[in-house]
Parts: sequence; C-alpha cells; structure tokens
Amino acid sequence: MAEFKVTPWKVEGKIDYDLLEKQFGIKPINDDLLKRIEKQTGELHWFLRRKIVFAQRELAWLLDEYDKGNRFYLYTGLAPSGPMHLGHLLPFMFTQWLQEKFGVEVLIQIPDEEKYWARQNLGMDLDEYHKLSEDAALNIASMGFDPKKTKIFLNTEYAKTLYKQAVKVAGHITFSTVKDAFGVGNDTNIGWIFYTSMQAVPAFLKSVEAGKNVPCLIPLGVDQDVHFRVARDVIGKLGYYKPAIMHNMFLPSLSGETKMSASEKLNTIYLSDPPEDVVKKVNRALTGQQATAELQRKHGGNPDKCMVCQYYRFLFEPDDKKLDKIFEDERKGRILAGEHKADLAKRINGFLDYHRKRREKTAKILDKFMARD
Amino acid sequence: MAEFKVTPWKVEGKIDYDLLEKQFGIKPINDDLLKRIEKQTGELHWFLRRKIVFAQRELAWLLDEYDKGNRFYLYTGLAPSGPMHLGHLLPFMFTQWLQEKFGVEVLIQIPDEEKYWARQNLGMDLDEYHKLSEDAALNIASMGFDPKKTKIFLNTEYAKTLYKQAVKVAGHITFSTVKDAFGVGNDTNIGWIFYTSMQAVPAFLKSVEAGKNVPCLIPLGVDQDVHFRVARDVIGKLGYYKPAIMHNMFLPSLSGETKMSASEKLNTIYLSDPPEDVVKKVNRALTGQQATAELQRKHGGNPDKCMVCQYYRFLFEPDDKKLDKIFEDERKGRILAGEHKADLAKRINGFLDYHRKRREKTAKILDKFMARD
Repeated sequence: MAEFKVTPWKVEGKIDYDLLEKQFGIKPINDDLLKRIEKQTGELHWFLRRKIVFAQRELAWLLDEYDKGNRFYLYTGLAPSGPMHLGHLLPFMFTQWLQEKFGVEVLIQIPDEEKYWARQNLGMDLDEYHKLSEDAALNIASMGFDPKKTKIFLNTEYAKTLYKQAVKVAGHITFSTVKDAFGVGNDTNIGWIFYTSMQAVPAFLKSVEAGKNVPCLIPLGVDQDVHFRVARDVIGKLGYYKPAIMHNMFLPSLSGETKMSASEKLNTIYLSDPPEDVVKKVNRALTGQQATAELQRKHGGNPDKCMVCQYYRFLFEPDDKKLDKIFEDERKGRILAGEHKADLAKRINGFLDYHRKRREKTAKILDKFMARD
Repeated sequence: MAEFKVTPWKVEGKIDYDLLEKQFGIKPINDDLLKRIEKQTGELHWFLRRKIVFAQRELAWLLDEYDKGNRFYLYTGLAPSGPMHLGHLLPFMFTQWLQEKFGVEVLIQIPDEEKYWARQNLGMDLDEYHKLSEDAALNIASMGFDPKKTKIFLNTEYAKTLYKQAVKVAGHITFSTVKDAFGVGNDTNIGWIFYTSMQAVPAFLKSVEAGKNVPCLIPLGVDQDVHFRVARDVIGKLGYYKPAIMHNMFLPSLSGETKMSASEKLNTIYLSDPPEDVVKKVNRALTGQQATAELQRKHGGNPDKCMVCQYYRFLFEPDDKKLDKIFEDERKGRILAGEHKADLAKRINGFLDYHRKRREKTAKILDKFMARD
C-alpha cells in the first residue's frame, strides 16, 4: 500500500488524519466500517481498499439505520466550469458502485448557477454554464446509473422544487457563517453568498418528499465538505436527519499537481479528448524516473511520485495484485517511462472509447434521468 | 434633519416627503407629467390629483416610449407578514386603474419568502407566510384586475421562472451594496441578503419572455424604492430597460401614525374586519377636534390632522368637490366627531362588504390569475 498525505488541497505522502479531524471534524474510514460495508456489498471498491475514499461523517449511524431496515439514498453532484475531465469522475464512479451494491436511489445536482456566481469575475454568461451543465448531465448519466433509481437535475431547471427548501435553509445561515466557512467578503456577490443553501437541499429533499425522515449519504470530493459543515446543523434544526458523508481525494494532474484541473489544460485529460491528445498528454506526465534508461534499470523509480503509477492506482487498475506488480516494476526499474506511458495511454483511450459509446446510447434515454420542474 | 426613517422593513416618524425625494433621488410628478397622463387616460386618478402618488423615476421616458407605440407593462407586489389591511391597497388600486386606462398587462409578485427571511427572529414557519400569501393573492385578484392581462404569483410557486433570472441579478450585486442599501450585517441571514434579486426579476421578465425590450412601470409604496435603486443599474447591465417607477405615500394609521401597520392592530382596519370592529376602530380615530362639541362648533378642527378627513382623502371620497366640503366642514366646526366617524365607518363597511362579495366571485376564477410553474 502506497504511503500518502492528504490535506483538503493536497494529495501526497501519508495522510495526516489528526489534522483532517481537527480542521474538518471528519473521521477516517476504519477497518470496522470497511467490514460493515463489505458485509453488505460482498466486496470493497478499490477506492475503499486504497483509501482514495478515505474519510466520513456518521457512516456508522447510516449503517446502523440500514441494518434496521431504514434504507438511505445517495446524493452527489458537480458544478461545471469547463468540459468534464477524469478528475470529475471519482464521486460518480463511487456513487454508482454504491447504488449498484445497495440498490438505492441517487440524486445528482448540477448547480449550473454555482460557477457563474463563484467566478463572476470571468464574465461568462449563465447560458454557457448551462450548456456545460447539460453536457455534464449526459456524461454522468452514462456512468452506469440505474435510470429508474436516479434523478439528475440542473438547479435552474429544478428551481421550483429546490428554491422553496433553500429558503428554509438560508433563513438559518448568517453572513458571518458563510464568511468564516467560504472566505466571502464585502465584495462577494450575493448569489455566491446564498449558494450554499441550494447545495444543502438534496441532502434532505427525499425526506421532504416522503413526509418522513430518510437517511442520506453524500459521496463527495473532500473540498465540498465545507458546504455540509454549514448545512448539517441547519438540516437538523429543520427536523431532518443530518446527512452522512464519504470523502474522496483528488485525482492529481499528470504533472503531479494536487488536483486535475481545467486551469492546467495540457495536463488534464478531458472525456472528449481524441486518442492522439491522450497519448501526447500522457507522454508529458511526471514519472519521477531516473535521467537515463540505464540509471532507471539500476535504481528504479518512486511509484508514489510517478503519475503513471498513480493513474493506475486511482482509476485504471482495479486489481490490487496487478497494481502491486506495476508499483513493484516501477520500484525495481523493470519498466521504462516510454513503455509505461504507452500502456497507460492505451488504457485511458480504451476507457474513453467505452465512455463515448455509452454516452451515445445514454443520449437516447437521457430524459429518463433528468428531473425538471 | 428630519426625524423619520423609511426602509422596506420599518417606517417611523412623520415623513417629510420632500426630503425623501432628495434622499432617494426621486422626482415629483409635475404638472407636465400629469397632463401627459391625462391626455392618455382622459382623467386623473385621485391619487394623482391629491399627490398621494407623489414621485417618480423616468416617467417621462416611459410616456415617450408609449407615444412611440412602445407599450409598457405594470409590475407591483406585496410581501405579507399578516392579514391584509387598507394600507396595503394603495399600489393595487392605482395599478388596476393604470391597467384599465392604458389597457396593459400586469405582473404581481407575492414574495412568500421575503418576510420569512426579513423576520426570521419571529420564528414563523414558511408555510404560514405561504398561507398569508395565498390569501393576499385572492384579495388582490379581487380588486378589478383583468384576468386576461394579469399574472399573480407566489415566489416559491414561480421559482423556476424567477430563480434563473434572479441568478443573473445576484451575480451583479455585492454584499457591500446590500449592506449600504438595506442595513444588513454579519448576523443577517443569507436569504435576506439574496432576496432583492428576486424582487428585481419581474421588472425585466417580460423583456426576457418577449426576446426584446419591453418598458416596465412599477407603482409602489415609497419604502420599496430601495430595491430598485439597487436593481435598476443591474437590469441595465443585463441589457434590459431600467424600469420606471411611481411612488405612493403611506396610508396613516387611525391613530395618526405614519403608516397603517399590522403591529398596531387596534388602529388598523383589516379587509376581514366585521362591521362592528370597523365602527369600534374608527371611533378610536384621532380627529384633532376640540375638547367639547361647543368648542368644536366655535373654533373648528384641522383636517390635515384629522384621520377621518385623511381617510376620505386617501380612499373614501374620490370626488374632489365632496372632499373639499368634508375638509371645510371640519375646519368650520360644522361637523362633530361622532357623526363624522359614523359616516366614515359606514363608508368603510360599504367598501369592505363590496370587497368581500368580489372576493367570493373571484375565488371561483382565481386560477385564471395565478401563474405557477
């Protein structure tokens, strides 16, 4: 098992759980919890085995409720600021797996207004974010979710349902709270100040609709935890169950930066990238190998710092034994950068090709997924 | 410096409307404008003749557009915090008159979330405000509006239409602006900070729907002007016409307070008050008459300080000659308080009886007025 470190904005080395617990009040997913999940699911997703999904809030409570026959639903989402890339997939892959294993419903929020507010300085029209959001909806729907048990919605299209509940949330959050949690200030627009109310709603919406409390589990990137640090108390005040949460790490960029990000286009693999671009981008990846083939064969490399190894770990090698071999080959200098990269590029292109085929099929039934008022 | 305060949430002290014009940057409705209106309408509403509707923004521009064949629409509204009283009627009576005379469309916003946010400290449920808002919708629809040309909506029921546009408005308003305009602070909830975006939307909604600019005229109580001081610039930035505005004064309470208000229940006449309550309340009215009938006959009273005279002026005597006689009788001591009050109570009860009958009829066709997503 690789050693790594996680802060909300950095993925490297050994996780400092104490720091995370202090800063966010979240807890690691310990062996007891892993066993309890495995008992229900029969196996563990590699995100769990490799601690890519590494932390949680109130997961034990959620599993207690499940044991009592009180089924939960899943809620996750994505606020697009550009076309979707590999890094965006993690919460959706994990949520889809949970849906399949537990047979539960999923709500997926695509807040098409969030980045319009959060990045008002960029001057992009709301319509542009709306188009990106529609594209994201199709990508997400294509990831294997059950159309009978999955609702995807864009906030501006589902506002009649969402706004009324957001009104209640917003009434219980002060500017001070948002200022402390999100670092907003006097020059922040009032949309961005209000926004967290909208993100809170799907965490209790099923309870509103059912007229009784339904547990909710939110798989999310750890950077989104802050919304629920604010909202959980409010949701409790409104009389609903506070949601449980599972946090995933960020996929690093190919250059080894903390998080694959649209601001680093050349090191970011988009779902729409043609095969030749993938090859080019992977060829630029940071590997941490030695200066020459000879030195690499002699001294080996460091898989923790090799983005090719890390991409296998995060997304492209579900089999732990095979992953161990990849890491071992890297350590022992048995594989050279060129070959290693070519293999990964092939694997990524295989995935993207598969995704595009699913996307074409899903486009025909997208309406089954979409919730619009 | 005058000691009065006019904000959307509180009106205090004796209002110096001239000073208010300077503070708000609004202009009086001068004789030229009155003539231009009369040219179109054939007559002037008593609110205009008596300068109860006393100020405006860009009314000349609106009339210029109208002369060019560019018809406007009307927008007004009410945020209920309790049952409706006589003071609430002024903008609706005036808007209905404008609709009739100009033959134009009307949008009426009932923001059922506003007071939930603005009075969060009272702890009233959103559902309670929603019920008050439904009741207000029926009262307003009963005031003679043309069901073919009038849309009334509660914000939480029309949020799909409103929210998307409010997102654009909110993106262009900073916390600083709302802080200065509305006096919000760190302990204000983020709903109330966001709210003004929702109130702005109907001022350009017809332009969005028409796909071209349509002028908008907003008749409102002068305390609401602040929302549009903030929103007019933003609406301009979004590429739409800035709305024109006409401001009405407040109906004073029977006790002579600046504004009839639900916090002064015994001096406030509700649309639902039974006749005997109206008689009781009017009997308590401030008249400014002399201590005895004999003194009153000898010295007379002051109609400007007599709430009975003022209620005739504001609402219950449209005929200027008859109003002059009422004022003259008061001045000359020809009428005593008891008789004067009994007459007014009769007039008010006549109006309320008429209103209740219209309300019963309107209840059957209310759906023709209501816009719901």
